[in-house]
Amino acid sequence: MAQKPAIPKGTRDFSPVEMAKRNYIFDTIKSVFVKYGYQPIETPAMENLSTLMGKYGEEGDKLLFKILNSGDFLAKANEQFLTEKNSVKTTTQISEKGLRYDLTVPFARFVVQHQNEITFPFKRYQIQPVWRADRPQKGRYREFYQCDVDVVGSDSLMNEVELIQIVDDVYNALGINVVVKLNNRKILTGIAEIIGEADKIIDITVAIDKLDKIGLDKVNEELRQKNLSEGAIEKLQPIINLAGTNQEKVETLKSVLKTSEVGLKGVSEIESVLEYLATLTITTEVELDLTLARGLNYYTGAIFEVKALDVQIGSITGGGRYDDLTGIFGLKDVSGVGISFGADRIYDVMNTLDLYPKESIVSTQLLFVNFGEKEALYSLKALQHVRAAGIKAELYPDSAKMKKQMAYANKKEILFVAMAGEDEILENKITLKNMSSGEQSLVTVEEAISIIQK
Amino acid sequence: MAQKPAIPKGTRDFSPVEMAKRNYIFDTIKSVFVKYGYQPIETPAMENLSTLMGKYGEEGDKLLFKILNSGDFLAKANEQFLTEKNSVKTTTQISEKGLRYDLTVPFARFVVQHQNEITFPFKRYQIQPVWRADRPQKGRYREFYQCDVDVVGSDSLMNEVELIQIVDDVYNALGINVVVKLNNRKILTGIAEIIGEADKIIDITVAIDKLDKIGLDKVNEELRQKNLSEGAIEKLQPIINLAGTNQEKVETLKSVLKTSEVGLKGVSEIESVLEYLATLTITTEVELDLTLARGLNYYTGAIFEVKALDVQIGSITGGGRYDDLTGIFGLKDVSGVGISFGADRIYDVMNTLDLYPKESIVSTQLLFVNFGEKEALYSLKALQHVRAAGIKAELYPDSAKMKKQMAYANKKEILFVAMAGEDEILENKITLKNMSSGEQSLVTVEEAISIIQK
Repeated sequence: MAQKPAIPKGTRDFSPVEMAKRNYIFDTIKSVFVKYGYQPIETPAMENLSTLMGKYGEEGDKLLFKILNSGDFLAKANEQFLTEKNSVKTTTQISEKGLRYDLTVPFARFVVQHQNEITFPFKRYQIQPVWRADRPQKGRYREFYQCDVDVVGSDSLMNEVELIQIVDDVYNALGINVVVKLNNRKILTGIAEIIGEADKIIDITVAIDKLDKIGLDKVNEELRQKNLSEGAIEKLQPIINLAGTNQEKVETLKSVLKTSEVGLKGVSEIESVLEYLATLTITTEVELDLTLARGLNYYTGAIFEVKALDVQIGSITGGGRYDDLTGIFGLKDVSGVGISFGADRIYDVMNTLDLYPKESIVSTQLLFVNFGEKEALYSLKALQHVRAAGIKAELYPDSAKMKKQMAYANKKEILFVAMAGEDEILENKITLKNMSSGEQSLVTVEEAISIIQK
Repeated sequence: MAQKPAIPKGTRDFSPVEMAKRNYIFDTIKSVFVKYGYQPIETPAMENLSTLMGKYGEEGDKLLFKILNSGDFLAKANEQFLTEKNSVKTTTQISEKGLRYDLTVPFARFVVQHQNEITFPFKRYQIQPVWRADRPQKGRYREFYQCDVDVVGSDSLMNEVELIQIVDDVYNALGINVVVKLNNRKILTGIAEIIGEADKIIDITVAIDKLDKIGLDKVNEELRQKNLSEGAIEKLQPIINLAGTNQEKVETLKSVLKTSEVGLKGVSEIESVLEYLATLTITTEVELDLTLARGLNYYTGAIFEVKALDVQIGSITGGGRYDDLTGIFGLKDVSGVGISFGADRIYDVMNTLDLYPKESIVSTQLLFVNFGEKEALYSLKALQHVRAAGIKAELYPDSAKMKKQMAYANKKEILFVAMAGEDEILENKITLKNMSSGEQSLVTVEEAISIIQK
């Protein structure tokens, strides 16, 4: 019996128009990556569960899509676990593979596995879907694309500078106004050090982040609730009140963190990056923001986040420096830094602001009307010339009613329609109609090509 | 503990060089599809098992990768099946989704699900990976890409002509010499009709296919072994001996099949396609081949197969017309025709014959040597100009030893290296070195750009 077709919840089909828009975004991002010397890699959708498990925390392990072993998968399963219906313990006995949860762990695995073939510093980008068994909701999908760009095997701050240039280039090309927020894990460590509250760094960052909304008194109150000592809170005041230009912030931090070696190292890193950027032509504002705590347990140096200025949507790009990405797979001391562009959020921003150039979503430019076999053959010959000139063009395959063929051109938003009936064939010409202006004229194929290419 | 990293058997990582080659193939194929007015779609990696099961035969059902339900998946499983360790019956109780096995069934599902949004005739292409739990072997993978192009909602033979034009264009662009083999399911049905052996059509086709290798007597012997009557074998002789030009073959078939309505319909379809093609500029040879039986139970009209002439590798593209693709999902009478390009085999042919244009696999064109902070900043500024001119260029991120930086340029096959030390900075120039010829000269950045772009 016929089934009513549907797709799994949290997944999406992409129509031709959606694909054109998404490809415009991906192609723009890729062309920038390539201009900076980054090269693509791809890894399999499936990884061994031993590669994935334990890398994303307990919650992450649960959100991995696991693939049932082929064949008689129950044969090797423990009978007691089955009888008890113990799903957790049975899982690893009947499943050895899982779907990629992000691009970072597969990349780390790739670098270690291929370390002898790779030329370091390795500048790679990777644009592939990932899968998470999250509860689907607006803007959150179970299958979505990530666009990651990383350089591993170099601890030069030039890489941080380059990543900010890439952000600047990508969002200029897409036409999205953004601000880059910049922080450094070492500064946060330094702050925790000088106030003697190393383990409360997340509480502190979360509280400071609320300054604009709730005011200084409430921030300090929250810090007290989190059991920070009065002395620590007092020492924090210059940091909570940190304001002004990046340069002013840097000066304040230098003074506050003067007894913390790691803190000063962080300030110096930020200062260098800002200095390098100042010598270049960057149109995007870069703002030192101490409340930026993304991936705090993971990053060891720079932390980046990019926010769209004209749409309320949260971060659309983020990343940072990590000093031991590949350690989990046995390759120590490989420092890396990278950022990830959130394709789905960028897509939402582009749609909200309608930023696609018209030509980026055009498919067919010219449709030949089909008046019957003889005329169709004449059109096919003309089409060879038109396509050779790089124009996307097609013949309506059936000699259907004119109205139907015109409706097809309209729905596909085809700007030009060519008609070749008996008269045109006699003159070795075509009638070319501009569907937008309604203008039409009898022209040669070569003339039609130059009109369409104008 | 550090694990030795590996990927699941039958899957592959793609390195930057492999990616460049594969992207060259995909981009070439895509650019042809687009020129003919085809539009891309994408469907999710996961489909409901109800969509996939029963569509690929019993063997296909076994080869589907099934995804374990999230959470306490055993809770709803039948206890008796578990106790008996009945894997087959347990499967559908603990798994509701599977990975895409091909692009055809998801496309049929897509067309039915979105029938009210689609403009028919719907010309779509789709390039995505598929997964099969096949035993991995040389050239056969568990994850591989398919490139499908189809038009549904039109039964015009113009579509068949167009698909052959696309094959011609794609392989001309890639530089692979091919022959297109053409057959028609209706002719095969007609043959079975006139010899009174409708159920033996596959045996007949397989036997005829061996004529070149084993000779006429052995072919007839094999037909006898398959229990064809002497009368049937006699009627088959003109078909087994079918030779000559396509036109000669067509004439023979018209005479042999004169009492079969469906057979004559098939001959007439082939004749029309060949006539249309004759009026166009097609460089690829198209050959009527009655032994072509691919997807016999599936196709209803034209059957296509493309073979590479200079490499022994089997079919690299294939397809045909199907009259009821969407019927399984409840949408009747939608005729379609399509072909699928075998990306992995094309990749093997391209590698064997080394057909990649040099520029298609070039990544970075220019590397700036890093002599230290001051020089690096000078280089970064120059790089902005170079990249704005569309040149792929990078700065070595660390001020490492010259030898190491040059080795990096060599391994990445970067043709030009720029050096900017104190002297160059004073003159506002760079020293540009061609790594292939060894030539080097002191030039302005603008001069360097025009040298590289030559």
